[in-house]
Amino acid sequence: MRIGVDIMGSDHGPSVPALGAVMAARELSPDVTLVLIGDPASIETVLEKEGADRSRFEIVPSTDDITMSDNPTKALQTKPRSSISLGFGMMKSGQLDGFASTGNTGAMLVGSIFSVKPIAGVIRPCIPSIVPKEDGNYGILLDVGANADCKPDVLEQFGLLGAMFAKHVFHIDSPRVGLLNIGEEEKKGDILRQATYGLMKETDKYHFVGNVEGRDLFNGKADVFVTDGFTGNVVLKAVEAFHDLMKRHGVSDPFFDRFDYEGYGGLPVLGVNGNVIIGHGISNAITIKNMIKFTGDVINSKLNERIREALL
Amino acid sequence: MRIGVDIMGSDHGPSVPALGAVMAARELSPDVTLVLIGDPASIETVLEKEGADRSRFEIVPSTDDITMSDNPTKALQTKPRSSISLGFGMMKSGQLDGFASTGNTGAMLVGSIFSVKPIAGVIRPCIPSIVPKEDGNYGILLDVGANADCKPDVLEQFGLLGAMFAKHVFHIDSPRVGLLNIGEEEKKGDILRQATYGLMKETDKYHFVGNVEGRDLFNGKADVFVTDGFTGNVVLKAVEAFHDLMKRHGVSDPFFDRFDYEGYGGLPVLGVNGNVIIGHGISNAITIKNMIKFTGDVINSKLNERIREALL
Repeated sequence: MRIGVDIMGSDHGPSVPALGAVMAARELSPDVTLVLIGDPASIETVLEKEGADRSRFEIVPSTDDITMSDNPTKALQTKPRSSISLGFGMMKSGQLDGFASTGNTGAMLVGSIFSVKPIAGVIRPCIPSIVPKEDGNYGILLDVGANADCKPDVLEQFGLLGAMFAKHVFHIDSPRVGLLNIGEEEKKGDILRQATYGLMKETDKYHFVGNVEGRDLFNGKADVFVTDGFTGNVVLKAVEAFHDLMKRHGVSDPFFDRFDYEGYGGLPVLGVNGNVIIGHGISNAITIKNMIKFTGDVINSKLNERIREALL
Repeated sequence: MRIGVDIMGSDHGPSVPALGAVMAARELSPDVTLVLIGDPASIETVLEKEGADRSRFEIVPSTDDITMSDNPTKALQTKPRSSISLGFGMMKSGQLDGFASTGNTGAMLVGSIFSVKPIAGVIRPCIPSIVPKEDGNYGILLDVGANADCKPDVLEQFGLLGAMFAKHVFHIDSPRVGLLNIGEEEKKGDILRQATYGLMKETDKYHFVGNVEGRDLFNGKADVFVTDGFTGNVVLKAVEAFHDLMKRHGVSDPFFDRFDYEGYGGLPVLGVNGNVIIGHGISNAITIKNMIKFTGDVINSKLNERIREALL
């Protein structure tokens, strides 16, 4: 297995992702090669300092990297030697089984859609988020930002992508898919939700459990919460902000530590022909280690093959 | 001043709102008369038991009350002697300066729009929520559920309604109005947000500060957060659920107590010709006391006159 790691996408400079990769290699199975894409000198310094087993790494030099302020679409075209462009090029040509980056999210998304491309039958790829449940399990909320405007057929299909992710990566049997809405009854919600409900209740591709509300996010009513990328992003950021507020007020509780994304480190773009994992630029080395290991889990799950089969 | 109180809208039966009213009368100025609408025997029992000053109360008997499972529009038509129908009738004929209820929210909203009616120039009345800020101040999030589908001109006007509410009831000078979005730049968001931004930046009716995100809800970037009733409701319920989770896990912190709605007890319908305050059916007597006092605050603020003037 070959996992590409973007070394240039960290807010803390290249040494942090390089260190995360060294830590990941120590915990991953020996058949995993980490392809480190970035500034060779910075990478070499970290590998040397850490006494890393060089046989586990390949270095692909990048130049002119995509920054957080770059326009995603333009940057991928004008910076072909950037770490993100190189990563997608290698994904496309089959040289990588997965690619993980904490860099420009927009560029990662554009690369996913226009370089590795959507799986045949996927209308709109999307980004899920993981929501800890009160009972110790995890729920999936999607989309959280890839698609601000969604049509009913897109939301209906997010149910399938979310169910596949929950089943094959989180090992939840027959995930219960709910439509995030502002009331439980079938006729509740805006026009989009009413039309989507009609499509979801007819599907035989997953187990639809009806409408769920914002208050159900952390309880046991559903495993997958389907929403448009606008609502999903606003809700996710509001809950994250509330959690940050708790932490800043010194409120500490092991249950709420599960709300930290550090445990898995990144999230896949669902519905594209490749295992693309996006993390946060502020991640520390341990979080990046977890993101790389999670990339391995997603590759091993054969999630994309399962999505392809489900869409046949 | 005459405040109507729905005695029949509590999940706990009529004695709880009656007790809340007795407690409110003791704290309100002596010129306030509370008009208790409900079952006379239940009300008399509480007034007697509490040794209440009878000169502060009037009793209006109701029958056949609207329940939580009633269809709001139908119930108002078919149950003219219910406490909610009677309250709106008295509002319309000028016998009440305000009306507070913890009953069927839909019926309260339908009554507000079809009985007391929108203020001339208001496109769509809405319901705000109060969000505690980290700095000790309060923010206003609106709409939180009255309008699932909104057009740009509706959202633009929510900015005005929210700014008026923040200014006249919460005494925030020149409230900063933000558009709740999924990025800060002008072109971010879905089609609705992009069109709304264009309208808001042209307004001279309030101080527009641009896009704000879910993560800004509790910080100092804006005083008013404008969104459609779908997104607002989902976000509000998700944050409330997270707060409930904190409480259930025994996490206690005085800062977070401010997230309990008990302190104000209810919220006004903004943009209608009357002071209509909606509370939660689960409220205890103290919360209902606070809702009634808050109704008095809203009446005293002359909020609706200020909205009328602003729309001229």
